[in-house]
Amino acid sequence: MCYINKRNVGKNVIIKSGVEIGENVIIEDDVYIDYGCIIRDNVHIKKGSFIGARSILGEYLYDFYADRKNNKHPLIIGENALIRTENVMYGDTIIGDNFQSGHKVTIRENTNIGNNVRVGTLSDIQGDCTIGNYISLHSNVHIGQKSNIKDYVWIFPYVVLTNDPTPPSEVMLGVTVESFAIIATGSIILPGVHVYEDTLVGAGSVVTKDVLKESVVVGNPAKHVCSVREIKSKITGQAVYPWRYTFKRGMPWKDSNYDEWLKSLKIDEN
Amino acid sequence: MCYINKRNVGKNVIIKSGVEIGENVIIEDDVYIDYGCIIRDNVHIKKGSFIGARSILGEYLYDFYADRKNNKHPLIIGENALIRTENVMYGDTIIGDNFQSGHKVTIRENTNIGNNVRVGTLSDIQGDCTIGNYISLHSNVHIGQKSNIKDYVWIFPYVVLTNDPTPPSEVMLGVTVESFAIIATGSIILPGVHVYEDTLVGAGSVVTKDVLKESVVVGNPAKHVCSVREIKSKITGQAVYPWRYTFKRGMPWKDSNYDEWLKSLKIDEN
Amino acid sequence: MCYINKRNVGKNVIIKSGVEIGENVIIEDDVYIDYGCIIRDNVHIKKGSFIGARSILGEYLYDFYADRKNNKHPLIIGENALIRTENVMYGDTIIGDNFQSGHKVTIRENTNIGNNVRVGTLSDIQGDCTIGNYISLHSNVHIGQKSNIKDYVWIFPYVVLTNDPTPPSEVMLGVTVESFAIIATGSIILPGVHVYEDTLVGAGSVVTKDVLKESVVVGNPAKHVCSVREIKSKITGQAVYPWRYTFKRGMPWKDSNYDEWLKSLKIDEN
Repeated sequence: MCYINKRNVGKNVIIKSGVEIGENVIIEDDVYIDYGCIIRDNVHIKKGSFIGARSILGEYLYDFYADRKNNKHPLIIGENALIRTENVMYGDTIIGDNFQSGHKVTIRENTNIGNNVRVGTLSDIQGDCTIGNYISLHSNVHIGQKSNIKDYVWIFPYVVLTNDPTPPSEVMLGVTVESFAIIATGSIILPGVHVYEDTLVGAGSVVTKDVLKESVVVGNPAKHVCSVREIKSKITGQAVYPWRYTFKRGMPWKDSNYDEWLKSLKIDEN
Repeated sequence: MCYINKRNVGKNVIIKSGVEIGENVIIEDDVYIDYGCIIRDNVHIKKGSFIGARSILGEYLYDFYADRKNNKHPLIIGENALIRTENVMYGDTIIGDNFQSGHKVTIRENTNIGNNVRVGTLSDIQGDCTIGNYISLHSNVHIGQKSNIKDYVWIFPYVVLTNDPTPPSEVMLGVTVESFAIIATGSIILPGVHVYEDTLVGAGSVVTKDVLKESVVVGNPAKHVCSVREIKSKITGQAVYPWRYTFKRGMPWKDSNYDEWLKSLKIDEN
Repeated sequence: MCYINKRNVGKNVIIKSGVEIGENVIIEDDVYIDYGCIIRDNVHIKKGSFIGARSILGEYLYDFYADRKNNKHPLIIGENALIRTENVMYGDTIIGDNFQSGHKVTIRENTNIGNNVRVGTLSDIQGDCTIGNYISLHSNVHIGQKSNIKDYVWIFPYVVLTNDPTPPSEVMLGVTVESFAIIATGSIILPGVHVYEDTLVGAGSVVTKDVLKESVVVGNPAKHVCSVREIKSKITGQAVYPWRYTFKRGMPWKDSNYDEWLKSLKIDEN
């Protein structure tokens, strides 16, 4: 039941029972593929990655359903991915290194995801979008087509990035989220909105206008309430934002601090 | 592992490995059933349909769990369905022709769905409801029991149609959505609300009262803000609504326009 | 394909094809395990339980991914569970008797669930939380880590209990929901909020402050509007709340009424 061209499989690969593997698949060293995965044609899984039970990689694009022939739509999964169970990832997609996902995540075609990205359970990335590095999408986040998410962005459960300004229409105006922005639980970002750097969109907001740098917005419709610099931790009484100075878990500056890390980068460049 | 009474299977049927098929199942010509589907008893799949990997058709109703016997609860899937992976569709349900669904959709018992309906990834149709023709439910839409959705309706992600006016209670007052209505992302429609023709419910609204014909409502609680006829496209500057005059993709008037198509229908009737 | 140490399997157990069973698994009498389930190590399924197709029980915790060795993280499922298809339940979790779940539910590690709890389709319990008895979580509810839900609580679709007061941070302030509280569709409860007994959080609320006993709150941000005792049924004209006097389906007082049942409990104690 599990056929694969052995030349394309690396060392120390574990493939559990019930896995189906298509043509032109590359599986690098130390990959683990759990029970019942479907790896369709033209999938490349880089070394050290774990593919959770019953995930479907290289899922068919719409063209398949016309003639039931699987055209070439490659999917590349970077090194050391941790993909939990029942993910569906389409072809024509590139996922960077150290990717982590929860259960039952959907990622559609023409998605480009950078390195060190985490995507929570039930999140749905609709394709035709760009997601940077060190992004955290929590559970049940919906990323509409044409979204553009820069680096170090946090998006919390049940947030939706929309794209159609006058539904139904043929126009698609994606949302842009700049680096270090935070969008809290249950917020809806309307089509074409630009969320700038170091902003905080409060929980349950409906964001109809651009969110300016370092602004906190809340409400329906969302309104500016203060600068992020005015927010203090109730625990420590200290300023919390911009968060890159107060939070480091999983970040590239985790062993020192943001400024030191930035300085070291610049030294490396010289 | 894949047993089926051959007399009930049409021509050019493809059944991939790991498929389980129950009793009294009818599979018409040109059907494709992908890996690992479970087709329980009394399911009828009409010609040309595609059933995505690991979908479960004819799922057990509650009576099964009392005695673990599967009573007769038929499921009918119309012609040319495109059902993506991991859908769960219960018995006692009828789905019309040209149905399309995303991944991981749930459709419960006593659901009647017309023709040319699309249901997005993770949507959950709770049963005991009626859904017309040319409906588009986007991702992650929740249709409560007793909902009644007419034709040409658009419902966007994370919309919930509710039904219990004083939870928890034994009373169920479903939502009615009339033809050509649009309910934008993240709106909640309260029990018994009637959304009339050609309305637009703005994103993130909590709709507590009936929405009158051609009305635009927004906010929490939702309030009337204008007529749909006042909304202009930011791109073209033209009026957008009623949308049947500005949008035709996938609609029966796609080769001419709404008025011409309507006229042709009337000629056909004479 | 289905290996199991026979000494740990009770009488009248049904295991359908494609089921994978790990080590140190206990399956009591009258258990039914449907097609394609994965039962990992150290899972104990008590008598009379039904495990829906392709559910994954005893799912790996994060430590598995470091060395791909499954450490001992037991999962206990109580008697007479009805777990529908494609649930994922982690190790280090205890679920009481008469549990019922919809499809595609996720329950993560360090979750303690009492008896007679129902969890709807697509709900996501993030772990490190305590859920009492006679709880009803409807479809697509998100229970954040550190949540504490007492007895007889009703939570409706798309409600989120959050936990991070200044995201992203290392602080986790869970939500507490006291007995007999009701949280209606689409509400978001902010970190550390205490929802007291007999309260009603209206649909679409964003709850930023504690909700006092018998209070009704609505809106974004949620504000007190009246006492629950002021709400009348539009059908009967009678007071509805506290609901334990007007609703009994599935409750321990279903054969008499709340007061009689409470009195009988006290007699039993003497």
